[in-house]
Amino acid sequence: MWNQAAEQIKPLSKSWLDRARTRLDSLTKPRNSLGFLEKMAQRVVAIRQEEAPSLRKKEVLVFVGDHGVVSEGVSAYPQEVTALMVGNFLSGGAAINVLARCAGAEVSVIDIGMKEDLQDARGLIQRKVRKGAGNIAREPAMTVEEAEKAMNVGMRIAEEAYDRGVSMIATGDMGIGNTTPSSALFSALLPADVADVTGKGTGLDEEGVKHKIQVIEQALKVNRASIKDPVSTLAALGGLEIAAICGLCLGGVARRMIVVVDGFISSAGALVAMRLNPVIKDYLFFSHQSSEKGHRIFFKKEAIRPILDLDLRLGEGTGAALVMQLIEDSVRIYNEMATFEEVGIEPGA
Amino acid sequence: MWNQAAEQIKPLSKSWLDRARTRLDSLTKPRNSLGFLEKMAQRVVAIRQEEAPSLRKKEVLVFVGDHGVVSEGVSAYPQEVTALMVGNFLSGGAAINVLARCAGAEVSVIDIGMKEDLQDARGLIQRKVRKGAGNIAREPAMTVEEAEKAMNVGMRIAEEAYDRGVSMIATGDMGIGNTTPSSALFSALLPADVADVTGKGTGLDEEGVKHKIQVIEQALKVNRASIKDPVSTLAALGGLEIAAICGLCLGGVARRMIVVVDGFISSAGALVAMRLNPVIKDYLFFSHQSSEKGHRIFFKKEAIRPILDLDLRLGEGTGAALVMQLIEDSVRIYNEMATFEEVGIEPGA
Repeated sequence: MWNQAAEQIKPLSKSWLDRARTRLDSLTKPRNSLGFLEKMAQRVVAIRQEEAPSLRKKEVLVFVGDHGVVSEGVSAYPQEVTALMVGNFLSGGAAINVLARCAGAEVSVIDIGMKEDLQDARGLIQRKVRKGAGNIAREPAMTVEEAEKAMNVGMRIAEEAYDRGVSMIATGDMGIGNTTPSSALFSALLPADVADVTGKGTGLDEEGVKHKIQVIEQALKVNRASIKDPVSTLAALGGLEIAAICGLCLGGVARRMIVVVDGFISSAGALVAMRLNPVIKDYLFFSHQSSEKGHRIFFKKEAIRPILDLDLRLGEGTGAALVMQLIEDSVRIYNEMATFEEVGIEPGA
Repeated sequence: MWNQAAEQIKPLSKSWLDRARTRLDSLTKPRNSLGFLEKMAQRVVAIRQEEAPSLRKKEVLVFVGDHGVVSEGVSAYPQEVTALMVGNFLSGGAAINVLARCAGAEVSVIDIGMKEDLQDARGLIQRKVRKGAGNIAREPAMTVEEAEKAMNVGMRIAEEAYDRGVSMIATGDMGIGNTTPSSALFSALLPADVADVTGKGTGLDEEGVKHKIQVIEQALKVNRASIKDPVSTLAALGGLEIAAICGLCLGGVARRMIVVVDGFISSAGALVAMRLNPVIKDYLFFSHQSSEKGHRIFFKKEAIRPILDLDLRLGEGTGAALVMQLIEDSVRIYNEMATFEEVGIEPGA
């Protein structure tokens, strides 16, 4: 399923990009004076292939998974916090709930790989592939089969949103310890030195970061034989929620939805999708430059310009939710501004 | 009037800043993980001095003025465009109208110094102080009396918004040629070399920028005797809309409204206000780093971090309108998120 989607995605339509540019240049403003906002609108038009795109229906998809590697002491929070935060998501009190409300977006929370079973958690979408990823410092995070299954769940979640008429989705994640597998994936797939892509996560001190680097180097050694292709690497080093985010990107792009990628963890999932088909990069909106060390390296190596740089490092989809508004604003500029012709001004420079 | 306001503004309340920080640290997220968004919320609380600030009522104030220096050939557009764009503002088709709608803000357009009289322009607020600023390459932009009058209009406009229950205002400008006086003001007040703070404006080529630099150097020479204090400098080198924006900042801050400063031209007005009373800087929200050369120098010299960096260079208040949403989002995070205590998690790092 995921491989068909990855293959079928074609480069962004040049003719739609040109068409959007022509309209942007006809609007009552100096050419390109709305800078990156214009580029965002242009891409939306080319992705949606619509004269006047509407992005009113939005959804944030938060995938939740646990990580065996937490037992190596790589996180400032204990694993139990994953489940407590899921409760917080479901009752609407987390940052992502607030920012999704601000953006006029729904929030869906998907158990893709929690250790605990929250059977009675009302509103939690149950799609568990396995009870937590393995401890990557000693074993693979999951089998290739499990990784593919999680990717397919992500794709299916995108399909379901599409069927509900959603036109813009944001990637979100929750999983104590998940900067560790993300750093491991960046190191393997960019590639980059472990120390360059490993940071404080939710709040390690300097010693903690040093230890985390060692754990990740160990993970790369232990799983060396599996670091062959994007999916085998994802299975070896990743996490269930990262695999699902990869699938969500594939499924969202395949359906011409606007896919807004959150921060460090989401970018790791998106990177796997980009390695499966490089044109996917042109479809994704990378919402922000996280303060997590390594995110900057990712953007630099992939020549991507993130939209915001606000020192966010929370995950959950929070940065993506903020940017949904800006993307919608850019589209409204495109749809609603008067043209030079309409107001009788010579276009000028 | 303006001088009383400038004097009466006190440093931001340390106890309210602390109070806001305590609440931010109690919310269900790792400490500071929402980075700059938290800092924005913290400042809003300290400015408003409210437990749960509400910024629902917002307004963008667009001040319009003309510039005699346009006759020196410093702009890519003819002066007539000022009046045509005012028509566009009033009929709701300009970029600022769209972005204000996105932010849920009203737009008010004030003639503070247009060359033309648009007597029948429905909705235009008539507060003209003089018909266009003088050609600063040959004479002062205006007298000190006129500058003070324009500042007082800006203050009065802030007062009127306050009386309507507005809690957040954005500065906006329109005036063909107004990057030239802004660059002149930055050069005089930062201070900085003219070449370092002079850019393309709405679309000059390299030759055009060179010429513009010469014109500004000439302006600084001709008006040398008047470059004494902030207001005399503003009068000599500025513009009516820049003076009004300075007054709007003073009046808005004095009334504890959230004042969101737009781009290059608005920053020139804000800089004059900051030179009248340095504590004002801590109250202003600088919305974005414009692509106009010199804006970066301003932020660097004043040690200010702009919120967005999207290559905007349109003015009108467009960048400020975008940021109004982000500021409101930050306040909703502050007001609406659950605390650790409420969900039963140990605060951790």
